[in-house]
Amino acid sequence: MHEMLAVRWHGRRDLRLEDIPEPQVKPGFIKIKVKACGICGTDLNEYLNGPIFIPTERPHPLTGRTAPVTIGHEFAGEVVEIGEGVKGFEVGDRVAIFPVIHCGECYFCRRGMENLCVNFGVTGLSEDGGFAEYALVRPYQAYKIPESVSFEEAALVEPLSVGVRAVKKAGLLPGDSVVIIGAGPIGLSVLLVARASGAGKVIVVEPSRVRRKKALELGADIAIDPSGRSTEEVVDEIVGETELGADVSFECVGLNETFKTAVESIRKGGRAVILGVFKCLTSFNAKGLVVGEKSIVGSVSHSADDFCRGISLIASGRVDVGPMITSRVGLEEIIERGFEELAKNREGHVKILAVGK
Amino acid sequence: MHEMLAVRWHGRRDLRLEDIPEPQVKPGFIKIKVKACGICGTDLNEYLNGPIFIPTERPHPLTGRTAPVTIGHEFAGEVVEIGEGVKGFEVGDRVAIFPVIHCGECYFCRRGMENLCVNFGVTGLSEDGGFAEYALVRPYQAYKIPESVSFEEAALVEPLSVGVRAVKKAGLLPGDSVVIIGAGPIGLSVLLVARASGAGKVIVVEPSRVRRKKALELGADIAIDPSGRSTEEVVDEIVGETELGADVSFECVGLNETFKTAVESIRKGGRAVILGVFKCLTSFNAKGLVVGEKSIVGSVSHSADDFCRGISLIASGRVDVGPMITSRVGLEEIIERGFEELAKNREGHVKILAVGK
Ligand SMILES: [Zn+2]
Ligand SMILES: [Zn+2]
Ligand SMILES: [Zn+2]
Ligand SMILES: [Zn+2]
Repeated sequence: MHEMLAVRWHGRRDLRLEDIPEPQVKPGFIKIKVKACGICGTDLNEYLNGPIFIPTERPHPLTGRTAPVTIGHEFAGEVVEIGEGVKGFEVGDRVAIFPVIHCGECYFCRRGMENLCVNFGVTGLSEDGGFAEYALVRPYQAYKIPESVSFEEAALVEPLSVGVRAVKKAGLLPGDSVVIIGAGPIGLSVLLVARASGAGKVIVVEPSRVRRKKALELGADIAIDPSGRSTEEVVDEIVGETELGADVSFECVGLNETFKTAVESIRKGGRAVILGVFKCLTSFNAKGLVVGEKSIVGSVSHSADDFCRGISLIASGRVDVGPMITSRVGLEEIIERGFEELAKNREGHVKILAVGK
Repeated sequence: MHEMLAVRWHGRRDLRLEDIPEPQVKPGFIKIKVKACGICGTDLNEYLNGPIFIPTERPHPLTGRTAPVTIGHEFAGEVVEIGEGVKGFEVGDRVAIFPVIHCGECYFCRRGMENLCVNFGVTGLSEDGGFAEYALVRPYQAYKIPESVSFEEAALVEPLSVGVRAVKKAGLLPGDSVVIIGAGPIGLSVLLVARASGAGKVIVVEPSRVRRKKALELGADIAIDPSGRSTEEVVDEIVGETELGADVSFECVGLNETFKTAVESIRKGGRAVILGVFKCLTSFNAKGLVVGEKSIVGSVSHSADDFCRGISLIASGRVDVGPMITSRVGLEEIIERGFEELAKNREGHVKILAVGK
């Protein structure tokens, strides 16, 4: 039996580069040779603060797995083997992986809302994922990509489609002025999709100088540094730049003050899409919501539809995800030069990719 | 100069039945003989706790008026005189009055969002209204009603169209399960419109026995009494009745706990429309909003489009507003048997109308 390299999550601050048996293709699965895999904020959070989503005590209901698992859910590669009963794929197909695993049977799955599946899982968290030489995925998770899309770009479809979903949830219309709070990978994905979808003036609020610069490079018109300023001052500046407030805001941080910025900086009738990871109760002005007829909309993960749109935006050249990649390293270096680097210098990076041979 | 009876707001707890000069028609206005006028929660609030919306110090920017004003904005009547320059009306036309006054020039008016006009006013609050024998209105405020719609029904178009707006804001789809929190005139309007729009199971949460009974009479499937129960218990009951939570909720109260009920009782992906009048900050679980992809949407007042749909629902027989009328009195009695009666026994009533001769 062949062995391969894989980055395994064993516990908080305990990622290990290990030699493990190469996965054997099973009926109903396809085997992928991983060509590129990116580190997500979720991965870093599992590394530094986990377990959060990775099952440790009770096996995941769909995969039966607990830790250790091979981490990494933002990946792309080449089909190398096809399991029994799988149709529609050939060896050599180049694919981007939609990492969502869903049960197909619950209330939400039966209504086409697979991203809300009560048994929701993710390849690379709920089972072995992409920081390895090979991975097994279900056919519904593999989307063929055209020659014009590189594997590196394909590994960025997953974070990009989080932006696609958020922009869809916002009901973004051509010419809408947009505020994006937080310019990490998610905020920048929102920025790219909003720009491609006809957004008018785009304002980014971000304390990191590196990320503000990246946001301007990717198409933001204004990048506001909120450091040392009150929420009221920041809101006033946004309202000033957008006449009476932005049409749409995207909250990509998850703090009480950034939530407030998102809701207060939109005009009457405006929409705030919330993507941040919140840890405590948020207090807010419901009266302002009602008399201003505002909408506050949660957006989480992405659907197959969002993922396909992500591929289409890249393939058509409408979106260039290339500048989001701030570092490329070999798989054997991804713990030190990826996870550890982000732990030390998160704001100096957007995406770090492990690239295969 | 003829005199007429009018109910004038002079200050908190100071409504006076007065003889005042009959209004003279002006260029650009039409004169209405009022046939029916209802008391709104807003009117009662101005009476008991005002001034809230009625201008007392600074004249309203569009009407130039301060108190005293003739109160009443839910009214209908007959056209008796037509001002210079007005086209499209004839003496004898039966009309329902859309009480919104808007400037036509602000950011929102120029974008067709007149209910968000920065100079927003209301006939019957910002200028003389319907608790009088005659009233002057602008042509854009008068909508002709067919013979099949009575003046009493026409006076209920205004509150009904608040329900129309809320149901539109919810994006209600056929079969959606619905929770309505609070079964006062607004909650019942939402109920009528939701029913007419194809709602599935409709659950009302309301402490008053009289109003719960009315809700069931108007088409609710279940009426829950929240008295003496925790928010968690009420939410659990709703979730149990709707499998995993309702598709849509409507908050028509304005308290921290009812807001919580509205957001917690909807399923993942559900929508909560907020109509209540809130007085303090509301704390809520933003994490639940994000991971549940919920939407929280404010809805206030109504637009001309909502108003026309209100007329259409009544005229087509899809909605019967008749049962909302719990008392009819003459104009000369509306302070004692209307406002004072509601102050003492609000939960025993839905709508009290002053009906003209
Ligand atoms: Zn991710
Ligand atoms: Zn499912
Ligand atoms: Zn009203
Ligand atoms: Zn206006």
